[in-house]
Amino acid sequence: MFTILPLKNGLDNVAGFFCQGVHAGFKPNGNNDVAFIRSNELCDVSSVFTTNVFQAAPIKHFLRYPKGFQTNFILMNAKNANAMTSEKGIEDIETLFGKLKTKFPSIHNPIMSSTGVIGYRLNVEKLSTAFDLFDFNAKDSHATASAIMTTDSFKKELCFKVLLDDDSFFHIAAICKGAGMINPAMATMLCFILTDANIPKADMDELLLPAIEHSFNAVSVDGDTSTNDTVLLLSSKQSGAYHKEAFNEALRLITKELSLMLVRDGEGSTKVVAFEVSGAKSVAEAERAAKALSNSLLVKTALFGEDPNWGRIASTIGASGITCNEESLVIHYDDVLIYSKDQRSLDAEAEKKAAAVMKKESFRIHCELGIGEESFTAYGCDLGHKYVEINADYRT
Amino acid sequence: MFTILPLKNGLDNVAGFFCQGVHAGFKPNGNNDVAFIRSNELCDVSSVFTTNVFQAAPIKHFLRYPKGFQTNFILMNAKNANAMTSEKGIEDIETLFGKLKTKFPSIHNPIMSSTGVIGYRLNVEKLSTAFDLFDFNAKDSHATASAIMTTDSFKKELCFKVLLDDDSFFHIAAICKGAGMINPAMATMLCFILTDANIPKADMDELLLPAIEHSFNAVSVDGDTSTNDTVLLLSSKQSGAYHKEAFNEALRLITKELSLMLVRDGEGSTKVVAFEVSGAKSVAEAERAAKALSNSLLVKTALFGEDPNWGRIASTIGASGITCNEESLVIHYDDVLIYSKDQRSLDAEAEKKAAAVMKKESFRIHCELGIGEESFTAYGCDLGHKYVEINADYRT
Repeated sequence: MFTILPLKNGLDNVAGFFCQGVHAGFKPNGNNDVAFIRSNELCDVSSVFTTNVFQAAPIKHFLRYPKGFQTNFILMNAKNANAMTSEKGIEDIETLFGKLKTKFPSIHNPIMSSTGVIGYRLNVEKLSTAFDLFDFNAKDSHATASAIMTTDSFKKELCFKVLLDDDSFFHIAAICKGAGMINPAMATMLCFILTDANIPKADMDELLLPAIEHSFNAVSVDGDTSTNDTVLLLSSKQSGAYHKEAFNEALRLITKELSLMLVRDGEGSTKVVAFEVSGAKSVAEAERAAKALSNSLLVKTALFGEDPNWGRIASTIGASGITCNEESLVIHYDDVLIYSKDQRSLDAEAEKKAAAVMKKESFRIHCELGIGEESFTAYGCDLGHKYVEINADYRT
Repeated sequence: MFTILPLKNGLDNVAGFFCQGVHAGFKPNGNNDVAFIRSNELCDVSSVFTTNVFQAAPIKHFLRYPKGFQTNFILMNAKNANAMTSEKGIEDIETLFGKLKTKFPSIHNPIMSSTGVIGYRLNVEKLSTAFDLFDFNAKDSHATASAIMTTDSFKKELCFKVLLDDDSFFHIAAICKGAGMINPAMATMLCFILTDANIPKADMDELLLPAIEHSFNAVSVDGDTSTNDTVLLLSSKQSGAYHKEAFNEALRLITKELSLMLVRDGEGSTKVVAFEVSGAKSVAEAERAAKALSNSLLVKTALFGEDPNWGRIASTIGASGITCNEESLVIHYDDVLIYSKDQRSLDAEAEKKAAAVMKKESFRIHCELGIGEESFTAYGCDLGHKYVEINADYRT
């Protein structure tokens, strides 16, 4: 019915879009720190933002546009979140856009997106020096993805080509940043998804949030939520091709893979774990228990120590506030049965096998509650010394 | 009206009680690991237990006694929580108590309390060897307090003498264990409070839970909750003296001081911080925000790094789901104003002062929301490398 093929070079594949990252002097190591994405034609845009009450100035600025507005420009910066900066933070964005439009008059309804430290005004003068470096016809996904990195240890960019039965095709591509503060409420992550599919705006709005629920909102690095979390989906429609089911599958695939990259890049993490809770009374309860596991400090440190301490798994489920009982609970580490009513304590053999599972770079902890039919999988990582190092002196 | 005086030697001061800790071979370093508290007469007992669904066997055993039962004996052990052990775990307790009563026939309605690793059956034979070491007339609060320690780095015991206007007096004393897993829902802590006040059972039941709400339930080390959390209050009534208000104040004082000891002993922590949230719409909202701060990994690592990164404080409040806005929020570190609408960014001077505050062993972070009249203070600690070390290989 349709085929999804991975392509290199991320955003560069998507017809009608241009992008570039440059160094404006904010990252001391000389890396890119300001970037843009633009399109020739005005694009529909769908968005999902943080649930944090203190939304950063760029988000407030976005939300002042009328519903259903179209745009042809996104400006991005790293190192300063422009959050907790009040009306002044929004004025700074407007000053920047004033300068930008003087230089590039075709810009219409520009969007800003920022990541970095909270609580400082933007350095508008310095930031606008980036504009002199912008090449409006650049297609440089790598440089763009690198510009939005903060504590990320690797660039996150993906592209899929979606081939339909009639040999027409479209692209969906995305770049993403995030490593710390990634949480069930998609904390401190930015994700920009571009497509040339001829997708109606209504479908964009309908499909984006559910895709995020099972990707960015299902991953946890440290359980904190940020002021700046943003996912934007822009469509140029220039391929002329579209197929709703194919687009949805490609969208879910790209958001899921990016969210797993975030977990893999969890600050100082050494392994990715899928916490699957099944047999729950409701999806909400399965989700609550799965996220309790992926957020538990004691579980995360046991993962780091590669200690098959399933008691912490059980205890965390018991504390999560869901319906469960110890008679029907069954816990597996991958395919190793490690707890059930009948096999209550680890024998030496099972413990050895479970310890071997925990040495893998990624594995699954599966808790069957034996109460109902619903399930949810959350993704998490371990917490080790590097997390402490990175976060104890992030600003300095 | 009344005077509260601290005394040394914890439980030993309370008339009518005896206690001892012995080494039965569970702690490899030879420290005490089994203990008892007993009384000559039957005592009223009030209790508060974990909200974890998977209550440990000792708690289930306790709850099978009829409401309002009296007791004269508590048996305690460390290194094995006897949790997730099903009916077998309760049978093990009954076997132990059978042996104990053979040796000491006066024991009536004994209570057990356990702390340690989850998921293993008790070694009943080994544990009962402790009974040969018990001296029923011992008054040894130190040995008792040391026997219940697991990851604790110091013993927790306190006693107050409460002098009333008519020169009558009573005592309240407590021992407590807990370091890791201390959380808003009093995870993995045991606390035994003894009094010789002539207190009615109804007052015991009325006063215990509110005292815990503002002490053990207001402290957080890592946000996890346990299967074994227990607070027991026993009264011998042997002083003959009682004054409700005085007792309540002494009870609140002793639980508050013990809970702060738990935070100070937070696994690998280097400082204690009081997170005061005021000006909230309701106490529940103030509590929610204060506990969000004390549980935030990013806040905890910033404390460890002594980085006055108030943006993380603001962001955590914004993510906590309470009513607040950035226009009325004011943040102080002790008396250093570090955020308000007008003083939005840290100037170098304020930042220097705030960094100096953070070097203290304990300090206050005060967030005035400017919305209402209610407040709550939660207590937390920093998270550093030692936490990771301790918890990565707790079992081994």
